[in-house]
Amino acid sequence: MKFEDFKIMATASSAPDHVVTNDELATMMDTSDEWITQRTGIKRRRIATEETTSSMCTDVATQLIAQSDLTAKDIDLIVVATMSPDYLTPSVGATVQGQIGADHAIAFDIDAACSGFVYGLHLVKQMLMANQQKNAILIGGETLSKLLDWSDRSTAVLFGDGAGGVLIQNTTVENGSFISEDLRTLGNLGQYLTAGQTGKPSPFATDQQPFSPFFKMNGRRVYSFAVKNVPESINDALKQANLTADEVDCFVLHQANQRIVERIADELAVSMAKFPINIDEYGNTAAASEPILLDQLVKQKIIKRGDVIALSGFGGGLTVGTMIIKY
Amino acid sequence: MKFEDFKIMATASSAPDHVVTNDELATMMDTSDEWITQRTGIKRRRIATEETTSSMCTDVATQLIAQSDLTAKDIDLIVVATMSPDYLTPSVGATVQGQIGADHAIAFDIDAACSGFVYGLHLVKQMLMANQQKNAILIGGETLSKLLDWSDRSTAVLFGDGAGGVLIQNTTVENGSFISEDLRTLGNLGQYLTAGQTGKPSPFATDQQPFSPFFKMNGRRVYSFAVKNVPESINDALKQANLTADEVDCFVLHQANQRIVERIADELAVSMAKFPINIDEYGNTAAASEPILLDQLVKQKIIKRGDVIALSGFGGGLTVGTMIIKY
Repeated sequence: MKFEDFKIMATASSAPDHVVTNDELATMMDTSDEWITQRTGIKRRRIATEETTSSMCTDVATQLIAQSDLTAKDIDLIVVATMSPDYLTPSVGATVQGQIGADHAIAFDIDAACSGFVYGLHLVKQMLMANQQKNAILIGGETLSKLLDWSDRSTAVLFGDGAGGVLIQNTTVENGSFISEDLRTLGNLGQYLTAGQTGKPSPFATDQQPFSPFFKMNGRRVYSFAVKNVPESINDALKQANLTADEVDCFVLHQANQRIVERIADELAVSMAKFPINIDEYGNTAAASEPILLDQLVKQKIIKRGDVIALSGFGGGLTVGTMIIKY
Repeated sequence: MKFEDFKIMATASSAPDHVVTNDELATMMDTSDEWITQRTGIKRRRIATEETTSSMCTDVATQLIAQSDLTAKDIDLIVVATMSPDYLTPSVGATVQGQIGADHAIAFDIDAACSGFVYGLHLVKQMLMANQQKNAILIGGETLSKLLDWSDRSTAVLFGDGAGGVLIQNTTVENGSFISEDLRTLGNLGQYLTAGQTGKPSPFATDQQPFSPFFKMNGRRVYSFAVKNVPESINDALKQANLTADEVDCFVLHQANQRIVERIADELAVSMAKFPINIDEYGNTAAASEPILLDQLVKQKIIKRGDVIALSGFGGGLTVGTMIIKY
């Protein structure tokens, strides 16, 4: 039997306990609940106190296995999409693998920023389709709070921490989930959104610079990029699948900014009712945002087996990725 | 026609111009040429002055395309294996994609530390075998000099900067290169080798810690891990391929330490003549070490078309990866 597709067997998510409201941020910088809500749709976000990217991803992996009929030893592959790992080595994936005792899994991280989950889904799908790995865990996990200048109201109000993931199995085409996809990288626009500049601290560097963790964003440019490229990417994926936007049951978009999601819905001429939002509670959690939202929608039975779902991520790189699946 | 294998079409490498000798290091810390040479085999290393991980990887990508009959627009996939990216976003891959104008390529980074090149080769192979991407560039690139405490003789003397890569095409099984592979992750040993700890600088963190870039290594544990797991991994890959170690023409091993390579050759009962070394000139360049060495051996015609090559990487994670190919 030839396995040429994948299926999402379980979803899970994890977030820090600590909630930071807009009002609390207004005590730290010149901002207000009204200003943040109006521009972004964000009301509050979870921010790590004790939690790390690895601890939240380990929690997600543990939940995923508990929901399945598998043990950790059955997992072949662990991929973590993150732009805020705890270390440059070991990878978050390797740490999760060790923590859950998935001794037979190979593990590594990928970095495609806010598109990391869709890029990861593409990658894991291709790996499973090549018929070697059978059971894979894909997690998007971030602790963006460590990359924020907490005195800069233009970026600090936007981001949050969390992790979400899926357990994926390879399967035959008849039982499979994959419908179509469209991935794009626009590396020439990469400087419009940067974070975690590792610098040139070595004494041999001609222009010595320390590590500079903070997000820097040209908000206007990133907005223009998103509202042009995301609808194009979704339309291209729909066209490949011979589907119309109306035939999609649910659009699970990266939660960067509620205004961007509204504009994308408008461009696609689809009601916002099909674009669920959780940015009000989580802020932008980069690679974690789509799997956290997906998990909530599955748990709330808003997404049901057989539904057609469009996942679409966009952000740093700059990158865009859309995958249409049958859940 | 079904493409179920890959072939390395071109190799390339790049390194900083600036050479730092052991004698120069002896003026910065309590060490000597004799001490370093005896324990590691390293005589000098290249250290970045103006260069960045992205600039060296872009140089490698440009060379790879120049050697082929392709243009940048023909590239479908760019994967950079690195544990020392210039930013946490954009990825080095996206930056290379933008710099060379590979508009149709998707690009991202993977982090599997010193095993990154073999992990990347596994990943790119699986992606090409799944028959979607045709032309891929895989690069291992590092600027480890920015992760070193230049007053710590136990780590600063070991590492260097550089990048190397391959241009890979999918192909039919008859024309293909793949023979066998064995990849392992031992996440439970991850704390024996750490670098680039991103810390907990956020004001909400209970235990606030700044970014701590420096390599920390339990050298004895990493040595024990390597001399046990690398021969096991190579033997498992050989067994799958129904080959003996004698039938391998060349072992292209990660250049972590000449003494480790000698011990591995001894374990496999193969002459060191089949284990080429360039650590004397480059030091340990993590994910870049195998592709730099591979490129040198191809350019020197030591590796020729049809040769059986065992590539084996090992390090942070902890991770090990072996792939046996017909070049």
